[in-house]
Amino acid sequence: MSLDPFDWIDEEARRRADAGLVRTLRPRPAAPVLLDLASNDYLGLTRHPDITAAAAGAAREWGAGATGSRLVTGSTALHAELENELAEFCGFEAALVLSSGYAANLAAVTALTGRGSLIVSDAGNHASIVDGCRLSHASTAVVPHADPDAVRKALRSHEGRALAVTDSVFSVDGDAAPLPRLAEVCRTEGAALLVDDAHGLGVLGEGGRGALAAAGLAGGGGIVTTLTLSKSLGSQGGAVLGPARVIEHLVNTARTFIFDTGLAPAAVGAALASLRLLRREPERAGRARAVAAALYERLTAAGLTAVRPDAAVVSVRAPSADAAVRWAADCRTAGIAVGCFRPPSVPDGVSRLRLTARADLTEEQIATAVSVVRRTAPVS
Amino acid sequence: MSLDPFDWIDEEARRRADAGLVRTLRPRPAAPVLLDLASNDYLGLTRHPDITAAAAGAAREWGAGATGSRLVTGSTALHAELENELAEFCGFEAALVLSSGYAANLAAVTALTGRGSLIVSDAGNHASIVDGCRLSHASTAVVPHADPDAVRKALRSHEGRALAVTDSVFSVDGDAAPLPRLAEVCRTEGAALLVDDAHGLGVLGEGGRGALAAAGLAGGGGIVTTLTLSKSLGSQGGAVLGPARVIEHLVNTARTFIFDTGLAPAAVGAALASLRLLRREPERAGRARAVAAALYERLTAAGLTAVRPDAAVVSVRAPSADAAVRWAADCRTAGIAVGCFRPPSVPDGVSRLRLTARADLTEEQIATAVSVVRRTAPVS
Repeated sequence: MSLDPFDWIDEEARRRADAGLVRTLRPRPAAPVLLDLASNDYLGLTRHPDITAAAAGAAREWGAGATGSRLVTGSTALHAELENELAEFCGFEAALVLSSGYAANLAAVTALTGRGSLIVSDAGNHASIVDGCRLSHASTAVVPHADPDAVRKALRSHEGRALAVTDSVFSVDGDAAPLPRLAEVCRTEGAALLVDDAHGLGVLGEGGRGALAAAGLAGGGGIVTTLTLSKSLGSQGGAVLGPARVIEHLVNTARTFIFDTGLAPAAVGAALASLRLLRREPERAGRARAVAAALYERLTAAGLTAVRPDAAVVSVRAPSADAAVRWAADCRTAGIAVGCFRPPSVPDGVSRLRLTARADLTEEQIATAVSVVRRTAPVS
Repeated sequence: MSLDPFDWIDEEARRRADAGLVRTLRPRPAAPVLLDLASNDYLGLTRHPDITAAAAGAAREWGAGATGSRLVTGSTALHAELENELAEFCGFEAALVLSSGYAANLAAVTALTGRGSLIVSDAGNHASIVDGCRLSHASTAVVPHADPDAVRKALRSHEGRALAVTDSVFSVDGDAAPLPRLAEVCRTEGAALLVDDAHGLGVLGEGGRGALAAAGLAGGGGIVTTLTLSKSLGSQGGAVLGPARVIEHLVNTARTFIFDTGLAPAAVGAALASLRLLRREPERAGRARAVAAALYERLTAAGLTAVRPDAAVVSVRAPSADAAVRWAADCRTAGIAVGCFRPPSVPDGVSRLRLTARADLTEEQIATAVSVVRRTAPVS
C-alpha cells in the first residue's frame, strides 16, 4: 500500500505533461495589457464605470456578502429587484438568482426531473448540464448535436415525464441550437424544454433579450431558461427563468439553491445595473453580433477555417492541440488575448482558437486582432 | 398525455402545503431590522466598513466580474493574493478559490476520486458533499455520524484508492467531527482525508485558523480542506486547500473550477480584507465561541434541549416541524432572526431552531436573544 494517498496524482500529472495538456493559471494585472478577445464580457460592461459603481454601492449599502442561504438570511430586496427585472426583460413570469450559472443549471436540471423521467441532452451541452444530468435521478439520453429529429425519437421511446435540454449558443463553436424546431418537438411530445442562454442573453433577440425572445418562445408554459450574470452582464451569478410555479418549485427543492449562500450584493447590484444599461443602450446587442460577423468574414477571407457565428463567439480551427497552444501564445505575445480550447474541453477532440466579440471593440481593434490572428496562424 | 409538461409540479406543491413544508423567500431591507442570530456571519464582518470598502475598491479597480473561467481570463493577481494568504493562514501548501463552497466541495470530491476508488462519507455531511459523491465515478459508503471505527471498517473493505470526507463542524447541530481519530484511521489505512471547514474557519483554532489547525493536522500530506468565504469571512466563494500537487490537479481536472466563471473581484477583495482583519484581531474567533457557549448555557439552564456547541452554531430542539416554524416566527415578531431547520434539510427528521453566535454580539443582545427564545418556546 502506498504511504501517501496522493501519489497517483503525480502519475496523472506526468501523463498530462507528456500529452502537452498541462493547464496553468496566468493571473492578470488590474490594468488590461492585452486586447481582450478571450473573455465573455460581450457587451464590454464589466469595467464600465456605471457597473463598477453599482457593484461598489451595493457592497457598501447591503454588505460584502449575503450572510446565508437565500432561504434563511441571504435574500435581500436587491435580489428580488434583479429577479423581477430579469424575468420582465427576458419575457418570463418569474426568475431565481443563484451564485453561478453552473449552480443554475444543476438546480434546473435536477429539480425538473426525477426518478422515472427522461432527460434528452444535446451532445454539445455545457459541462454544468452534463453534471446536472449525472446528479439527477432521471435517466439521460444524449442525442447528436443540434438534431431535433433525434430529440423526438428519444422522447417517443419514453413513457412519462421528460425534459429536453440544450445550450442556446454552444460555447465551443458559437453555433445556435435549432430552438423553434426543438420547441415544436417538445410541444407535440409533451416534454418540457430547458435552454441554457448563457451566451445568448445580451447578444441575441431585440435589445439582447436572449435566444428565447429571439425565437418567440419566451414565457411559454413548458419552457425554462437558465442564464449567467457573468457574461454579457459583466458580473457574477446565474439565474433560472420560467413559469412562477417552476420557480416556486426550485425554491423548495433545488439543492444548489437551498444549500448555497446567496449571491453577494455587489454581484447582484452590478447585474441589475447592466440590465438597466442594456435597456438604455439596446444597440449594444446588435453591435456584439456585428463585431463577431466582421471577425468571421475577415478571418475566413484570409483562408482560415471558422464557424459562422450565431452570436458573439467565433471559433477558428487549429490543426492540433499543440498548434492551438502555440497560436494562442503567439497572439498573446503580439498583444491579443484569445481563448484556446483543446481536449478534454472540446467534445469532438478538435482544438480551436476561440475569439469573442465585444460590443465596445473599435474598427481599429478589430483590424489589429484579425491581422495578428492571420499572421500567427500555423501553416497547415 | 398531459398538455402541460409541468402539471406535476402543482401536485408536489399541494403535498408540500399539506405537510406544512412550504418554503418562501423573505427579502430583507438594507438596514437590519432584526437582531441577527440566523446568518453565518460569525465574526460580524460582512457589514464591517473595512470589508465593504475592500469589496467596493476591488470592484472599481478590477471590474465587476472576473470575465471568464479562471483558466482563460478569470484569474487576477487579486485571486492569487487571496489564495496565497489563505493557504499560509490555514497552514496549507496551496489554495484554489472557486465561486462557492458548494463548487469547492464538488471540485474536491470529484477530482480526488474516480472509477475504482471509494468515498467514505459521514451521514451528516453537507448537501454539497453528498452531491460531490453522486457526481464522482467512485463508489460511496455512507457511514454513521462521527464514527471513526465505521470509517476504518469501510476503508478496510476496499482495495485501492480511498477518500474519507467529513464536515469539521456539522451545520445542523454545530457538533465537531472527531478529526484526530479520523486522521489516524486514514493514515493507517492509506486513505486521503477531506474536511469541509465551512463552519470552522474563523472560529476554531488559534486566531480562527480553522479546525485542521486546531487539531494539529493542517498541511498534512494526505489532508485536503474546503472552506467558504461566505461565512466567517463575510463575503462569497469557496476554496480548496492542500498539497500543491493536489491544487495543480484540481486546476487541470475539476469541472466546477474549469467550467465556471472566476469569483468576482469584489468578493475576492472582501475575503482578503477579512482575512487580514482576522490577523489583526485574532480575538474575534474566541469571542464567537464564547458567545455560542453563553447562548447554550443560558438556554439549557432554562430547560431547553440544545447541543453543546463546538463552534458558533447552537442547535435547539423543537417538538415538530410546525412548532419549529411557529417558534421561529414568534422570535421574528419579537425582533430576533433565528434559523429554522426542518425536513428535508435535516438528515434525522428532527426539526430545530438554529442560532448562530456572532463575535460582535453584545452582552445585552445575548440576554435579549435568550429571553425571546425562552419566552416563545413551544410548551412540550
